[in-house]
Amino acid sequence: MKNTFGQSIAVTLFGESHGPAVGVVIDGLAPGIPVDINVIEQNLLRRRPSSVIDTPRREKDDFKILSGVFNGFTTGTPICITIPNENTKSSDYHYGVARPSHADYSAFCKYHGYEDYRGGGHFSGRITAGLVAAGGILIPALEKIGVTIGTHILKCGIAEGRAFNNVEEDIAFLKKNEFPILDNSDFAKKVISQINTAREQNDSIGGITQTAVCGLAPGLGEPWFDSMESMISHAVFSLGGVKGIEFGLGFSFAASKGSECNDPFRVIDGKVVCETNNNGGINGGITNGMPILFQCAIKPTPSISQEQKSVNFCTSENVDISISGRHDPAIIRRICPVIDSVTAIVICDMLAQRYGTDVMLKGVLPCNMD
Amino acid sequence: MKNTFGQSIAVTLFGESHGPAVGVVIDGLAPGIPVDINVIEQNLLRRRPSSVIDTPRREKDDFKILSGVFNGFTTGTPICITIPNENTKSSDYHYGVARPSHADYSAFCKYHGYEDYRGGGHFSGRITAGLVAAGGILIPALEKIGVTIGTHILKCGIAEGRAFNNVEEDIAFLKKNEFPILDNSDFAKKVISQINTAREQNDSIGGITQTAVCGLAPGLGEPWFDSMESMISHAVFSLGGVKGIEFGLGFSFAASKGSECNDPFRVIDGKVVCETNNNGGINGGITNGMPILFQCAIKPTPSISQEQKSVNFCTSENVDISISGRHDPAIIRRICPVIDSVTAIVICDMLAQRYGTDVMLKGVLPCNMD
Amino acid sequence: MKNTFGQSIAVTLFGESHGPAVGVVIDGLAPGIPVDINVIEQNLLRRRPSSVIDTPRREKDDFKILSGVFNGFTTGTPICITIPNENTKSSDYHYGVARPSHADYSAFCKYHGYEDYRGGGHFSGRITAGLVAAGGILIPALEKIGVTIGTHILKCGIAEGRAFNNVEEDIAFLKKNEFPILDNSDFAKKVISQINTAREQNDSIGGITQTAVCGLAPGLGEPWFDSMESMISHAVFSLGGVKGIEFGLGFSFAASKGSECNDPFRVIDGKVVCETNNNGGINGGITNGMPILFQCAIKPTPSISQEQKSVNFCTSENVDISISGRHDPAIIRRICPVIDSVTAIVICDMLAQRYGTDVMLKGVLPCNMD
Amino acid sequence: MKNTFGQSIAVTLFGESHGPAVGVVIDGLAPGIPVDINVIEQNLLRRRPSSVIDTPRREKDDFKILSGVFNGFTTGTPICITIPNENTKSSDYHYGVARPSHADYSAFCKYHGYEDYRGGGHFSGRITAGLVAAGGILIPALEKIGVTIGTHILKCGIAEGRAFNNVEEDIAFLKKNEFPILDNSDFAKKVISQINTAREQNDSIGGITQTAVCGLAPGLGEPWFDSMESMISHAVFSLGGVKGIEFGLGFSFAASKGSECNDPFRVIDGKVVCETNNNGGINGGITNGMPILFQCAIKPTPSISQEQKSVNFCTSENVDISISGRHDPAIIRRICPVIDSVTAIVICDMLAQRYGTDVMLKGVLPCNMD
Repeated sequence: MKNTFGQSIAVTLFGESHGPAVGVVIDGLAPGIPVDINVIEQNLLRRRPSSVIDTPRREKDDFKILSGVFNGFTTGTPICITIPNENTKSSDYHYGVARPSHADYSAFCKYHGYEDYRGGGHFSGRITAGLVAAGGILIPALEKIGVTIGTHILKCGIAEGRAFNNVEEDIAFLKKNEFPILDNSDFAKKVISQINTAREQNDSIGGITQTAVCGLAPGLGEPWFDSMESMISHAVFSLGGVKGIEFGLGFSFAASKGSECNDPFRVIDGKVVCETNNNGGINGGITNGMPILFQCAIKPTPSISQEQKSVNFCTSENVDISISGRHDPAIIRRICPVIDSVTAIVICDMLAQRYGTDVMLKGVLPCNMD
Repeated sequence: MKNTFGQSIAVTLFGESHGPAVGVVIDGLAPGIPVDINVIEQNLLRRRPSSVIDTPRREKDDFKILSGVFNGFTTGTPICITIPNENTKSSDYHYGVARPSHADYSAFCKYHGYEDYRGGGHFSGRITAGLVAAGGILIPALEKIGVTIGTHILKCGIAEGRAFNNVEEDIAFLKKNEFPILDNSDFAKKVISQINTAREQNDSIGGITQTAVCGLAPGLGEPWFDSMESMISHAVFSLGGVKGIEFGLGFSFAASKGSECNDPFRVIDGKVVCETNNNGGINGGITNGMPILFQCAIKPTPSISQEQKSVNFCTSENVDISISGRHDPAIIRRICPVIDSVTAIVICDMLAQRYGTDVMLKGVLPCNMD
Repeated sequence: MKNTFGQSIAVTLFGESHGPAVGVVIDGLAPGIPVDINVIEQNLLRRRPSSVIDTPRREKDDFKILSGVFNGFTTGTPICITIPNENTKSSDYHYGVARPSHADYSAFCKYHGYEDYRGGGHFSGRITAGLVAAGGILIPALEKIGVTIGTHILKCGIAEGRAFNNVEEDIAFLKKNEFPILDNSDFAKKVISQINTAREQNDSIGGITQTAVCGLAPGLGEPWFDSMESMISHAVFSLGGVKGIEFGLGFSFAASKGSECNDPFRVIDGKVVCETNNNGGINGGITNGMPILFQCAIKPTPSISQEQKSVNFCTSENVDISISGRHDPAIIRRICPVIDSVTAIVICDMLAQRYGTDVMLKGVLPCNMD
Repeated sequence: MKNTFGQSIAVTLFGESHGPAVGVVIDGLAPGIPVDINVIEQNLLRRRPSSVIDTPRREKDDFKILSGVFNGFTTGTPICITIPNENTKSSDYHYGVARPSHADYSAFCKYHGYEDYRGGGHFSGRITAGLVAAGGILIPALEKIGVTIGTHILKCGIAEGRAFNNVEEDIAFLKKNEFPILDNSDFAKKVISQINTAREQNDSIGGITQTAVCGLAPGLGEPWFDSMESMISHAVFSLGGVKGIEFGLGFSFAASKGSECNDPFRVIDGKVVCETNNNGGINGGITNGMPILFQCAIKPTPSISQEQKSVNFCTSENVDISISGRHDPAIIRRICPVIDSVTAIVICDMLAQRYGTDVMLKGVLPCNMD
């Protein structure tokens, strides 16, 4: 349903880049979940442009909780968080000229010219601040029942890092570091180099993220149509820069044989596990107890200051466009906490649907066999 | 919502592989849409195992329309179609032994042992017959308003065919041929060779499909959360064999620069088009008037007769398993009409949400600017 | 969403009065719920025309369970039940002449003439057989966790019975009797007399039902918008004959004062109860632990054989109509098990949303404070 | 889905009585609908306590539109409106003592004591300000396509006004008057007298409202489960004071005969109409072109300053309570614009589902037969 996602736990986004505020309503959370504004602030900080590689637009994310939190805990009623917009420079944008690979033209077709086009309006990455604020409540709540989520940069341009290996440790490492990569290797430098080179060339660069979810019991997801893959992909494809998603081996399954990539089951310490995790923790749409693993393809930021061919859709004329505003040459770093947050929304919703709204309060995740 | 998908036009699946019947309820279709049982039959035929490369299980798909069709037209009320199961051989399956990469174990965890395990039960590919029957009504209805859908085998093992090029012609070609490849080239032979080799080795093989949707006006889809990519991926990931999806360049965006992969807009004959279609017809989650293009990664059929390591989850013991039943060494051919059908469900639903339930009756697709 | 109702537990209806079959898909039920075909048969029997006061149309309700039940238990996947239509006499109906107070004309406006008009089509009371079949699974499942539901005739024409008093005993009495009244008094005779008089006058007669739900813990329902009253009324107003619903005192609140009708709380045996139940067990949309009580206004069956003024909506001419088919002079008896069943659907769905899908398996209803 | 209502056009409420703000998110509205802040202000004014008969709590409703409106028109993206809370006196409330007929105890059971209890929290009538703000956009939008809505006081205590007669004129009369009654008769005085008498007795009084919707084409609504009655009742029962709803004759059908209350169809000026409107404009759940008519039973305000028996649910002790805060002795006047607004939400949503999201922009309501 449009700007609302989730069934038991539902998140509604609102706001435009250059309007008074962006925000989020989170509904369906159990009462009694701790809400720590410092954690929300930290989660927003991870998304915020801050380092040398991001857009010069700086925002404080001075969020307000309007409802649903009382004495530091969720009340069980909808939580509305607003984040005022500041530091907007609307004059950078000229309506009618479609920025290639941006939503300007498709938005015009959908909204008939009534869209708030300033700064990308409702399509701006700015809107993801609401998702990340929601993540600032949901991610710690999941951690309390033993579920952890982490996203890192797997590739950026031609720079390539390692994949998740020891997933729990890797996620713990990610939590402690601002830059979302798995090791203190020179991969960070290579990523920054790729991005800075793109910037110097007035260009932008894409990448691939990898996300893991640990600690989920087997048995979560539906065969038709709400498979775990369906729900995660539904949520993740909300993000404008995501153009592909694969679980486990994903596209590498294509040239594989069953004998090579089927995940053998074994009983270890009385528990059923897989020796490999080529299926990314999901069989037949349902978690199998292994970590969920998925990769997202992120396209290069469409806004580049090189001259590009385009059209003015108001006048139906061909034009050239050179985008002069403040832009990220890559969103691969900033999208990581956003993917964490939308994944947390999906997991919380599916847990609540399966085990009831109080599932987050139970101290431990219910075992499927209880 | 579990086994129902879609909002304005909703499809509910039911059935188990070895129960009395599988089937589908299609709700929300406008009254007055022609229903041609021959077309449904043909669509089912495309999914059916029939050629040398498929499972020896043969089924007539002797479907019955129980409701919602009167005098050859939809009535506007729910259409229930049942497809009786025949030719089932339940003795091939032994409960408790998890077939690797299958849903046996995750289903056991979800359903506590009450699942109808025979023949994969509700997880069986057999259930997709309901989707394809729905496609047999929806695909012709879309064609009447100028929207066409086609899916072909892009890769199978190491055999690789060409991508969509002239999309409309390519789709027309696919309609006329039983084997879903784009040309009368020797690619078909290579695909069959890959599959037969896998069979001879008691193994299975994966692949990649590509799907196109032509004729959609720009402006369809939502920025959050029901982007066109979100809805298509949600639907497609219901299919057990799908482990990845990408739109346009997809994962190839990762190493691309904005200057290389942004799609330049041009006005041609007074109409806004893109010179390239790297975004697969979707900007910011919303169609831009270019054909929608996406690729799906299909994993090798999990069932292979080679011996595999596994467990008996009833006894918590390690076991070896060699799957002796009748199985497809690859589902890449049979999944193509299924992807066509789920794509049709998504497109019909999004059109109906946007333009009202009667959109399919209007002769032409409404222009977004009307 | 149209012909589907419920979120965690969803029921989809299909079928037309004179088509091959009517039926229901029940999705979201936990695995392991016993399914007793005799109980389904008994529930259908309560709805079936059988006594002297009903329509002469006789139907065996020879239902089939196509899916979702295995070895006598729910599997957790969708249950499809079909009920073939028999003994149809289509010639009684003439298309174009609107039966007053029936849906003929409004259906024509909605379905543009494509509707299956025979026997009322999808508007026929026949469709409620699917609801009652669902009730045959859900009602016993609720009883296992201590929740009981009962509906009786409170008024029929000018005959008036007593209201629920000792609710648990009253429901137990209703279970044991075919005719849904609270006592072995002469009220049954009065009801039958009212109905037979109407029949003799070629007329029909309305009535009021009263329903109680016992055994629900306090805390079920939502303040906005899914209050317990909202959900029950939503479900009950699906039934064509229902034109009003009130909870507790309902319309009698209008002339009351707060001091007279507020329900005083008291602690009895350590448990919070109300001394009166004027609010029908619901405060602020949420159950308070007292029995839910509601009354439904049932209009007289529209089909009467007296001559009535009407129109032929195909020719836009005024006509007179005298309806000669087989019809109930009152549906007040037959609607009672239907209201029980839709109430059970609502309660099961709200329990599953609140406590998880396995709530029905827990032996006892979870206490809200657990 | 809890605090969100509607499918194509969805309204999400948030806020607590004594939190920073209450508010609403309205999603799914077409772009290009005029938004007049004066009209929103006027609609809020109708709900506000202002006359001698209401609570002394005075609030300015100084609302802010945070998103979704640009240059005076809807953008097509979610509209968030916040209304700051002012003039709160939290000290009037003591947690643990259940006010009889209020939600205090049921909320405690649902929210385990984490609820923001101050001023009724999320259960406060204050939350309806968000609904009325939404109405301030939706009602004028409906008027532009010829659909008008009006609600008046039919009964208050023993004072009884007349019902709708010439519906269009009556609605026009209501628009022009602040006090929601149908005539400049002495009925207003009787209502005020009833309310003032209740106040003097430290008591409260109930009533009945009547609502009409004019200008809807026939064919709107669903047979199962989303009948027009279902959707309106679902929305209206969100309002805490509503304990009953009936359409047309409603509970008066009970003692009626079909020959007396069936609505005869006639062709007048080439148009099909009913001679009477006992069914309240709805047949089989679908509009028949006559005005929709329904009555709501409103219970007396639970808060009275007379001493009442109750419990402290924290200590499980019996207590006496005398509620000393500022309260309306009757909400019958203030609930009228709220019912108008929730009815507008339902109608807009059902129109958008049927005719597409742009239906509000078409100048005239689409005729069902187009």
